[in-house]
Amino acid sequence: MQNPSTDLRVSDLPTPCLLLDRAILKRNLQAMSARMKRHGVTLRPHLKTAKSAAVARLAVEGEGGGITVSTLAEARYFAKNGFRDILYAVGIVPSRLDEIAALRAQGVDLKIITDSLDAARAVAAHGESLAVLIEIDSGAHRAGLDPADPLLIEIAQVLNRAPNISLLGVMTHAGHSYHCHSTQDVAAVAEAERLAAVTAAERLRAANIPCPVVSVGSTPTAVHARTLAGVSEMRPGVYMFNDLDQLALGSCGPNDLALSVLASVIGQYPHRNQVLIDAGALALSKDISAGEFMPDAGFGTIAGQHGLAVTDVNQEHGFVGAKTALPLDRLKIGAKLRVLPNHACITAAAYDRYHVVDSDLDGGETVVATWDRVNGW
Amino acid sequence: MQNPSTDLRVSDLPTPCLLLDRAILKRNLQAMSARMKRHGVTLRPHLKTAKSAAVARLAVEGEGGGITVSTLAEARYFAKNGFRDILYAVGIVPSRLDEIAALRAQGVDLKIITDSLDAARAVAAHGESLAVLIEIDSGAHRAGLDPADPLLIEIAQVLNRAPNISLLGVMTHAGHSYHCHSTQDVAAVAEAERLAAVTAAERLRAANIPCPVVSVGSTPTAVHARTLAGVSEMRPGVYMFNDLDQLALGSCGPNDLALSVLASVIGQYPHRNQVLIDAGALALSKDISAGEFMPDAGFGTIAGQHGLAVTDVNQEHGFVGAKTALPLDRLKIGAKLRVLPNHACITAAAYDRYHVVDSDLDGGETVVATWDRVNGW
Repeated sequence: MQNPSTDLRVSDLPTPCLLLDRAILKRNLQAMSARMKRHGVTLRPHLKTAKSAAVARLAVEGEGGGITVSTLAEARYFAKNGFRDILYAVGIVPSRLDEIAALRAQGVDLKIITDSLDAARAVAAHGESLAVLIEIDSGAHRAGLDPADPLLIEIAQVLNRAPNISLLGVMTHAGHSYHCHSTQDVAAVAEAERLAAVTAAERLRAANIPCPVVSVGSTPTAVHARTLAGVSEMRPGVYMFNDLDQLALGSCGPNDLALSVLASVIGQYPHRNQVLIDAGALALSKDISAGEFMPDAGFGTIAGQHGLAVTDVNQEHGFVGAKTALPLDRLKIGAKLRVLPNHACITAAAYDRYHVVDSDLDGGETVVATWDRVNGW
Repeated sequence: MQNPSTDLRVSDLPTPCLLLDRAILKRNLQAMSARMKRHGVTLRPHLKTAKSAAVARLAVEGEGGGITVSTLAEARYFAKNGFRDILYAVGIVPSRLDEIAALRAQGVDLKIITDSLDAARAVAAHGESLAVLIEIDSGAHRAGLDPADPLLIEIAQVLNRAPNISLLGVMTHAGHSYHCHSTQDVAAVAEAERLAAVTAAERLRAANIPCPVVSVGSTPTAVHARTLAGVSEMRPGVYMFNDLDQLALGSCGPNDLALSVLASVIGQYPHRNQVLIDAGALALSKDISAGEFMPDAGFGTIAGQHGLAVTDVNQEHGFVGAKTALPLDRLKIGAKLRVLPNHACITAAAYDRYHVVDSDLDGGETVVATWDRVNGW
């Protein structure tokens, strides 16, 4: 669904809708690609944020072509769009193995992950050809085995002995990088992420189990890692768009935010220094993660209007306020605002398409394309 | 998309997915319908929660047939599904009037609302036949005019004098009922909601402006209003499904929760008394509104497993914990749980369909139908 350039203007778009700035997107992609090349690490972009084939094609330009996904709906969608090397980076449940095997039978090298002996045994017993990574906990304490856990070798042996299974290696995600209060802290988490994965890989190799893949990844650690020695691939995702949370974390600068929600003013309430917009809890999400670092970020800040933010949301209403008097002459009924989201991955999931603009072309006034997205599971 | 009964079992469904219990739904609909009949008030159900034609058809059984919607996507969807009397209950922006008029030209009596003199003038000048209600603030301080505001008469006169405009009356939504800490408080908010609407209507009538419609509505106030004297219609929405927030508010009982998210255990972490499920921020939403009253509700509680809740979410991971030891034998990899959401309206919006079960038939073990939903704008 990539349209040729049309005369459609941003000001003509019905609201709320999702704007994606292609110029910023491309710069973000190039910066991450160059960073990983300097580290000598393969970039396996995570498409959980963009969920878009058009974005994915740009993200793998000059890379190995492999991608990461967070749902089987994404796996099916990207397979249909020609992607052949896909890592499904959420712990597998045995009931989904038939779907995985069916995609693999179509020529899609869909890899799965596990940290469970029960799941590994089910994978080994499934009978079809499957490719597996073992998930390691590098400190986020979400999923994964401690690199020193005896289960690591036990699971690896179950998988390695199974004739149809390719045990590819280990992977981890340092999700706790999202709660660091300085880039030094992020760098320390990046080192913990690297070390956990490399340690686990070395334990496997010491047990005579091959471990070609050592996969790590989060946007903050990808940006701030000082060394990725021993790591084979990196899986950041939100770097493509960035958001207020990444800005607050120091993963990007204020000019690197590619995604916004276009909204219209639907009410003016001067007596309480407030306007209402038609982007509420569904259009913005209830994610307020940037608030950990930016107390005034609310449910999103207003692009180009310093100090204005969405201070509260109901289902279809966003409350816009400021600590100083609102510029009500610029906020009349029907005026259009761009809301910068806290967390691009969560906000974008409410939409089935991007309206693509390009700030390098005409300041981003024209919709240059419409790109579809995949949602659901 | 209402399938005949199949042999599909809940245990066969891929997760995460949305389960809707038709038996509970029907009881919730009947209770609200009976309540409104006792009050002598027309029920105009709000479809912002269900967003489903199949649910809407059940909700208007024995009623006037009118419905309420929160987006123009809902208006188009319900129009396509045969609904002809639709109130679009979010303040209108003039740029959407052409769409409204186009639907009206197709025979859909689509009504709009405003609280703005600018918008009222644009409506009056639009030239097409339009039907309008004026929005009143009954204390929620979201949208609407104070019933004593001089603008009320001014806006009403602009609309009433315009030859193509039907000024139908006034409407309000007591959204602050969602923050009441007792049913007495809800009853007081219900009375404030009624009084604001009736006062505004009486001011219009005193100015010789007809005001046939006096529309109020929220689920808590619909349940706890002691009198609705002077009110013509009620627009509750979430009562169809209920959720933890409504349970906490006393709008329903624990057996009245019709909606849940089916999820699978994807990881076991006994050392931290935790399991992971495949329903995270996208599958459950980040809405934690019930937490205002139920501190342990987290991102949802686990149906039938007392004390278990989703304590945190990442995009596709939900962390399930409890204050006592988790029953890990019932939470093995692949085990299925039902998560009761904080806020049905927000959680349901991540899905394009309901898997319908019926606890009166076989305890809700069989999927008796699949009902579609409309999302987006």
